Amino acid sequence: MPNPSAAMLVIGDEILSGRTRDANMHHLAQELTKHGVDLKEVRIVSDEEEAIVTAVRALSDAHDEVFTSGGIGPTHDNITADSVAKAFGLHIDVRDDARDLLVRHWEGRGVEITEGRLRMARIPDGATLIANPVSIAPGFTVKNVHVMAGVPAVFEAMVASILPTITGGEPLMSQSLRIERGEGEIAGPLRALAAEYPDLSIGSYPFQHNGVFGANVVIRGSDGGQIDAAMTKLADLFPA
Amino acid sequence: MPNPSAAMLVIGDEILSGRTRDANMHHLAQELTKHGVDLKEVRIVSDEEEAIVTAVRALSDAHDEVFTSGGIGPTHDNITADSVAKAFGLHIDVRDDARDLLVRHWEGRGVEITEGRLRMARIPDGATLIANPVSIAPGFTVKNVHVMAGVPAVFEAMVASILPTITGGEPLMSQSLRIERGEGEIAGPLRALAAEYPDLSIGSYPFQHNGVFGANVVIRGSDGGQIDAAMTKLADLFPA
Repeated sequence: MPNPSAAMLVIGDEILSGRTRDANMHHLAQELTKHGVDLKEVRIVSDEEEAIVTAVRALSDAHDEVFTSGGIGPTHDNITADSVAKAFGLHIDVRDDARDLLVRHWEGRGVEITEGRLRMARIPDGATLIANPVSIAPGFTVKNVHVMAGVPAVFEAMVASILPTITGGEPLMSQSLRIERGEGEIAGPLRALAAEYPDLSIGSYPFQHNGVFGANVVIRGSDGGQIDAAMTKLADLFPA
Repeated sequence: MPNPSAAMLVIGDEILSGRTRDANMHHLAQELTKHGVDLKEVRIVSDEEEAIVTAVRALSDAHDEVFTSGGIGPTHDNITADSVAKAFGLHIDVRDDARDLLVRHWEGRGVEITEGRLRMARIPDGATLIANPVSIAPGFTVKNVHVMAGVPAVFEAMVASILPTITGGEPLMSQSLRIERGEGEIAGPLRALAAEYPDLSIGSYPFQHNGVFGANVVIRGSDGGQIDAAMTKLADLFPA
């Protein structure tokens, strides 16, 4: 059985404008690979309702699991929760269970309960809350879409909360070999190796560093024995 | 007149598997912002023909300019050029102008001309070549899609080649203010400020660092005077 497929949707003008770098994609990609879920697509869209609604629908239809990052804070520019609700035609409002979590947390700390802060308790009808051990304000899962925060520490905690609930497949394993030859020279042998091992994925990633040219060849698959065999052949073809 | 809109398509299993981090998106985002082109969407897809074809068509239809990164090297896993040709129903083969560039470069260096290397001269009919001063193998532009290499040094050189040919709009300017208060506290005043300046985009990006919580508030727009005025009001609302 093939591994479940996943997509990620990053909501963030600050990434599209080049102001900040996304940090969550790399973390999620690594965690999913370990868990045996194949991340097939990532989209980054701006903080605009139509863009979020369109992407949520498309990714939810095309993949088994969708993970979103960003746009669930208290300020006016956070419209992810409402946009996800709209994508699925669900009613959304401040929900009692999420508000109780927040109010209990804030009361113990003397934090004033403002309308802005209560936006973080807006949860679509029927959604399941995702625990946030870092700053309490929950994410949520609706259908196959997991809506999480953009702050990396919170995103990572939410990923850790949600991953055990998802049935993964076989973890993807990989081995790589650094070959200090031009890709043009290794292309033919690699193509033949790829044809010999149709269940493996063989990729070549060129590098140029301090005047040295070459490629890192990565062999991926879920059968460790096959990867070992192909890697041995590769190393014989291109001795260091 | 609104700025032209752009999308980026990154082709790369190695990013989706978490093996490497994408470096090109951040560079392109910054360059486009300076040039007055609004990057509205980024997609990252795997090295699969159907995924690339679908994304190229969707992004080309929806945006003024599309920039792709990755998958144009000589090895078998590089299928971007052929996939872009297929997306537009164009014939593709090794093209004389591209081959001549490469052969001239290789002959001077004693590099053997292999079938793999000549894959880098596969260019769709009607496409315009994009200069590659780093390693010669060209990118190309077909319709509104600019197909570029994934190696960062080459990608950046190609962006520098192509950007002057694109008519930009007004560069997006921004100012930011670090406010060491919880977002819940600043949400209300920010919402009022955003309503007062409908032409500006006001975003709030929370941080937690060494136990200090707060948000960086970024005000963006193309009218420097408006940004100054809004930033002055913001600073008055939240004195340091």
